[in-house]
Amino acid sequence: MIRTLTAILATLTLPYPAVAQDAPRPNQPSPNQIVAEASADEWVAIPAEDLLVMTLAPDRDGEPRKVVIQLMPEPFSQGWVANIRTLARAGWYDGISVNRVQDNYVVQWGDPNYDNPEAEGAAKSLPEGLRVMEESDYVAPFEIQPLYPVTATQRMSAVADLIERGGMPDLPQVRQIIERQQGDSYAVETMMIKGWPFGAGAGEGSSEVVWPVHCYGMVGVGRGMSPDTGSGAELYTVIGHAPRHLDRNIALVGRIVSGMEHLSSLPRGSGALGFYTSEETDERTPIRSIRVASDLPAAEQPRFEYLSTESETFARYAEARANRRDPFFIVPAGGADICNIPVPVRTSPAD
Amino acid sequence: MIRTLTAILATLTLPYPAVAQDAPRPNQPSPNQIVAEASADEWVAIPAEDLLVMTLAPDRDGEPRKVVIQLMPEPFSQGWVANIRTLARAGWYDGISVNRVQDNYVVQWGDPNYDNPEAEGAAKSLPEGLRVMEESDYVAPFEIQPLYPVTATQRMSAVADLIERGGMPDLPQVRQIIERQQGDSYAVETMMIKGWPFGAGAGEGSSEVVWPVHCYGMVGVGRGMSPDTGSGAELYTVIGHAPRHLDRNIALVGRIVSGMEHLSSLPRGSGALGFYTSEETDERTPIRSIRVASDLPAAEQPRFEYLSTESETFARYAEARANRRDPFFIVPAGGADICNIPVPVRTSPAD
Repeated sequence: MIRTLTAILATLTLPYPAVAQDAPRPNQPSPNQIVAEASADEWVAIPAEDLLVMTLAPDRDGEPRKVVIQLMPEPFSQGWVANIRTLARAGWYDGISVNRVQDNYVVQWGDPNYDNPEAEGAAKSLPEGLRVMEESDYVAPFEIQPLYPVTATQRMSAVADLIERGGMPDLPQVRQIIERQQGDSYAVETMMIKGWPFGAGAGEGSSEVVWPVHCYGMVGVGRGMSPDTGSGAELYTVIGHAPRHLDRNIALVGRIVSGMEHLSSLPRGSGALGFYTSEETDERTPIRSIRVASDLPAAEQPRFEYLSTESETFARYAEARANRRDPFFIVPAGGADICNIPVPVRTSPAD
Repeated sequence: MIRTLTAILATLTLPYPAVAQDAPRPNQPSPNQIVAEASADEWVAIPAEDLLVMTLAPDRDGEPRKVVIQLMPEPFSQGWVANIRTLARAGWYDGISVNRVQDNYVVQWGDPNYDNPEAEGAAKSLPEGLRVMEESDYVAPFEIQPLYPVTATQRMSAVADLIERGGMPDLPQVRQIIERQQGDSYAVETMMIKGWPFGAGAGEGSSEVVWPVHCYGMVGVGRGMSPDTGSGAELYTVIGHAPRHLDRNIALVGRIVSGMEHLSSLPRGSGALGFYTSEETDERTPIRSIRVASDLPAAEQPRFEYLSTESETFARYAEARANRRDPFFIVPAGGADICNIPVPVRTSPAD
């Protein structure tokens, strides 16, 4: 594959190499280079019904700030996902704000007057038709067939296929990756399902369940104390190290696919848990609106696609995330945690 | 222990509980509550020689921005640590800038004219006396006795002691934690040594080695392509999900202990890898100075301490991070990755 200057730059910590290489180093493609070579049919278009466009107030320089959120597909978290569409279509989110920014944790937005004795106004009444979800909905049955191989045997055989086709490094290294990627401190197994990261483990009785995991940029549903499960009126996204202890304790509904920087760079709140205090009301970034993309005029609808987690390119990309052999690296890790294999999402190329 | 309103607030995602609890829920202390109850002798004062005070230019509102960095202790990364003190004492860092902010990755600072064809000036010459480090220095021999128990047997016995003293939950749950915390996708073992997070695994030949890990807020040494190992003139900190694939590939020298928000909230660069482009030179936050704290007048020296990772409170805190039983939570995770057990650091209480 042609190593362009841009591709080489993409592997450096400094803008340009400081010294010439005097010994042979690994010279394999980086994960991003692998993704760039994916064929068009390995990308899956995201339905406009699954995209939200969140418009924040312009920044201090008057620049617009748009955030696009991809909602999870069926059958995951669908009650909350439906609620979010209902709230968006009722215009309920218009005029709410970002009320909490806690470093290495979350940005959270919703009605600043919700359940707040220091509120300056009454809480916004919620629209009709919101579903009340159960705590059992935080997980889904394991019978949903994950299309990314789960067991070591399945993974080995998928990788063996790839090696035969000439795309992958040798088996012993791959075996090591596979065995170490299976579980982590939080889940007996981790896996990709339909383009999303999941943990799996024991459910009630002798069942097995899967649940979405709190990787950077994932979007979840704020709630009060159990048994409250939240409606979708209060949302948050992860802006630090994946807080996996929240998995299975709160609903995840989607991820930020564009404009994350508009949230992650917000000033941190000085109050407990990163809430803006009553002296910091000016810091609360106003949210002008959240719209379901399919409700926008066609010309304004963002068009995004994700790299299929069932594709050969995704498997090669995941392996490269686990074993960096591009020139900057010296010691491939031999494994990667699921949140260190972000699913590539991009704007769809023009037709 | 007394549950103050502040303590209860610390466990909520929303400012106040939305609904009353109608079934008994776990009501154990949160990790932060456990730390708050530590005895004074469980906190270890950080020597002023190990603290750096980095002063950024004031923000747009004229507010000062100070960042404090704790350097790693002997015997870890000491060549780079010594270089950083040399550079700070030579005033070399005065007038450099933050040149790169890449979302979910790093903030990086150094000489914007270093090895940059678009530079507006000549690169700053480095002071005399900087050590040239080897790639073998990225790891340390395992003979350094970790004081936090490493093997499952050692951990079980430490925990058994705690249970006898009445501080911990039942053994089967603890066993599960211990067995799952031992390794992860990146290291055969993970452990705390002298207040820092490490991975451990095979080194050259049949040796075993330990290496610091890239948790959120850790500070590392920018370098060019191997065999360059960096001097310490170029530094970075992690502002997203722990990029553990960098472990063993680059030197880690410390962590941000105060003022992280001044770095993590910076605007992201638009160039490749989050570098600010030539059109964005105004975005580069100037660094006024970096000083070794022991060189400052006594009244200006920051005083920090960390919770000993050999202490009973730390063990209870780590267990609570792995199994949240404070009221907000429903399902304790049963384990935690090492970067999800941040070592508590605080300003020292006034004498």
